[in-house]
Amino acid sequence: MANLIGRMLVAQSGGPTAVINGSLAGVIQEAGRYPDLFPQESDADDEPVPVVYGALNGILGVLNEDFIDLEVEKRATIEALKFTPGAALGTCRYKIDFQNKPEQAARDVDRLFKVFEAHNIRYFFYIGGNDSQDTAFKVHEESVKRGWEMRVIGIPKTIDNDLANTDHCPGYGSTIKYNAATVMEVAADIGSMATDDGACCLIEVMGRDTGWIAAGTVLAKRDPASAPHIILLPEVAFDEDRFVTKVKETISALKYCIVVVAEGIKDAAGNRIGLDTTQIDPFGHGLLSGAAERLAQIVSKKLNIKARTVKLGYAQRSAAHFASATDIEEAVACGEKAVRVAVEGKSGYMVKLERESNQPYRCTTALQELKDIANVERLVPREWISEDGFLPNEHFVEYAKPLIQGELPIPMQDGLPRHAVLDRVPIPKRLPPRES
Amino acid sequence: MANLIGRMLVAQSGGPTAVINGSLAGVIQEAGRYPDLFPQESDADDEPVPVVYGALNGILGVLNEDFIDLEVEKRATIEALKFTPGAALGTCRYKIDFQNKPEQAARDVDRLFKVFEAHNIRYFFYIGGNDSQDTAFKVHEESVKRGWEMRVIGIPKTIDNDLANTDHCPGYGSTIKYNAATVMEVAADIGSMATDDGACCLIEVMGRDTGWIAAGTVLAKRDPASAPHIILLPEVAFDEDRFVTKVKETISALKYCIVVVAEGIKDAAGNRIGLDTTQIDPFGHGLLSGAAERLAQIVSKKLNIKARTVKLGYAQRSAAHFASATDIEEAVACGEKAVRVAVEGKSGYMVKLERESNQPYRCTTALQELKDIANVERLVPREWISEDGFLPNEHFVEYAKPLIQGELPIPMQDGLPRHAVLDRVPIPKRLPPRES
Repeated sequence: MANLIGRMLVAQSGGPTAVINGSLAGVIQEAGRYPDLFPQESDADDEPVPVVYGALNGILGVLNEDFIDLEVEKRATIEALKFTPGAALGTCRYKIDFQNKPEQAARDVDRLFKVFEAHNIRYFFYIGGNDSQDTAFKVHEESVKRGWEMRVIGIPKTIDNDLANTDHCPGYGSTIKYNAATVMEVAADIGSMATDDGACCLIEVMGRDTGWIAAGTVLAKRDPASAPHIILLPEVAFDEDRFVTKVKETISALKYCIVVVAEGIKDAAGNRIGLDTTQIDPFGHGLLSGAAERLAQIVSKKLNIKARTVKLGYAQRSAAHFASATDIEEAVACGEKAVRVAVEGKSGYMVKLERESNQPYRCTTALQELKDIANVERLVPREWISEDGFLPNEHFVEYAKPLIQGELPIPMQDGLPRHAVLDRVPIPKRLPPRES
Repeated sequence: MANLIGRMLVAQSGGPTAVINGSLAGVIQEAGRYPDLFPQESDADDEPVPVVYGALNGILGVLNEDFIDLEVEKRATIEALKFTPGAALGTCRYKIDFQNKPEQAARDVDRLFKVFEAHNIRYFFYIGGNDSQDTAFKVHEESVKRGWEMRVIGIPKTIDNDLANTDHCPGYGSTIKYNAATVMEVAADIGSMATDDGACCLIEVMGRDTGWIAAGTVLAKRDPASAPHIILLPEVAFDEDRFVTKVKETISALKYCIVVVAEGIKDAAGNRIGLDTTQIDPFGHGLLSGAAERLAQIVSKKLNIKARTVKLGYAQRSAAHFASATDIEEAVACGEKAVRVAVEGKSGYMVKLERESNQPYRCTTALQELKDIANVERLVPREWISEDGFLPNEHFVEYAKPLIQGELPIPMQDGLPRHAVLDRVPIPKRLPPRES
């Protein structure tokens, strides 16, 4: 495949993770390994023009030509991105919505390609989850349709771990490592206060309609008596009576009960226990916010015991201070792989993780066509969950355990983490402002 | 002062902290330095009888003669206590309540001294907060009244940092270190998602009627624009209109706003914003659980923006994985000091922390009479809070910053913390069961 001369553009989309910037660092560092493939252009003043752009706030930044020069960022800053939560480029939840807003979507796509042409952007790397891979897929399809030679590669990112066709997703390992540690710590606390009255703590975790995150806390369980005692997954219909009975049994035996609740649990009729229908996001998802509080009310009323709640919220997807070394390394590797395969000529793929073995754990990066990723949701398999539905079983543990291994020394300053801050040197705009 | 021959008893009470077991380790390790002062007794079988007892679940364990032998615990286990959250001996919220239950209290005190005599307990170390120091004070007073020569020393412990007459309390530094890191991380996440619509996240922290914990998150603020943007303290009356205006201003300027809310905030009339009056604990405290959710409703309704919440709950008092090295060391030092001064003949005191200098930070242990501690609550001084009441000022930062410094390597196993587990070898009971 002949060299394709032109700029690289990288953007981040959707909810951040503790390691999403690891993939960004991987893209930037790998791009630097191909100086011959991307010769520096010169602008009118004979100044070199940067070849690696970052778009601010995802696809919105592309539409608005909000680009920054990633080549002038300090090497140390790029390296520190691996320990920095949030999306260093900013992110968005903007959707190019052909189905519901076809006219706006058509205008958006026209604008995108005007921007690509104006800046001679030939490589587009989009770090994101399900919805973002869908956007990447559309950009790829349009580039083919329009004959704009371009290489579009998606880089997976989601704490939810719900992308299809990849063993797991960067971001997931760090979230379950932090959540499992939190469960251990809260259990040590609550367990040590437990008297005959009994105590119950409900810890709500994220994951939308899938139970991967909740299931991951089972790694805290080092013996049958230790927490978590119950994990409620969206994959198993919630039955209030069975749940209350299980809490009661646990408290009778141990004096306390730690319950991990996925935010998206549903009853047999499909009603979400924690749905707040008053707030809906642009993708049509409702805001899930109340499952633990709801269950605490049930427990305290039916069993007459104190029920406390913990809602980790965004803390669980940004806890870079306790990230998994395995996860960081894989996030970086996914970014590097994206650049490598794009240089080799690939387009329309997402980088995926393929597990080669569990003991020792070995995982490599590979490719999957974007059309197989977008808008497909992967659930925790029923055969990875105990018969009674209250805990993931040994198959899940075998799967999840390698993903939380290892810790890296975190850059600190005055007793707190030191995060990378990009200089964000703007690229001059070449087009009139977008008409939305 | 002549040597006082007899057993030592240590117990833990109230809500645990990340470092409460550090003080326990300090007591056990220091006790081991006085083999001559505490010669091994022999029981009927000529077996040596342990001289350091632990009571399970605080004063309740003393009443019930639930003692374990702390001298047979492995040295490595004792050392690992310094990194183990929860109360390794178990804790309780049982109160000897002379005011409201005088007959029960009198029976309890009689029983306590029967137990002390039966086991020849001459040293009693009680690791706890406000209510627990009150219990220690009563035990001390009764020992004098009854002529049972005994040395009673309180060891401070509370994440709330509300004990009077000590510079600060072990447990506090680790909580604000973890909370401040969480605020930084959540802010990186939310800030990177912020678009023109604006975003608000309300992070609820503990602290009951004082704002020490909430105030501590100001350490996350490294420049005027960084989070937290608003910290709501119980020391400043909550005014809904002023709050909403401040959130609006912040979002106009930065597109997002991170609010830290103390669970105990009150309006000018003294009504707690987050009080759940349906659950009251044995000390008469209501359960505080809803301030952030309540404010999120207000923000999303009045400003029409998405308001998310994080409720760290017990995670913030058990986050040993990110404890402050300064805090751990001081907790250990308080335990050691208690044993040292008891051996020297002191009784009726609490160990306190005295700051000698800020730069470099130097802090030593000293003594304060228990009567000056019990049931006094210390608030954040008004002169440590900004004029508008929305942030602690530089005086507070100078006070709090040294308390979060330093990290120690945490024992890990399979990617998660490894906590100490005591063998808990029981001491045979010598009395008939307690009649309650």
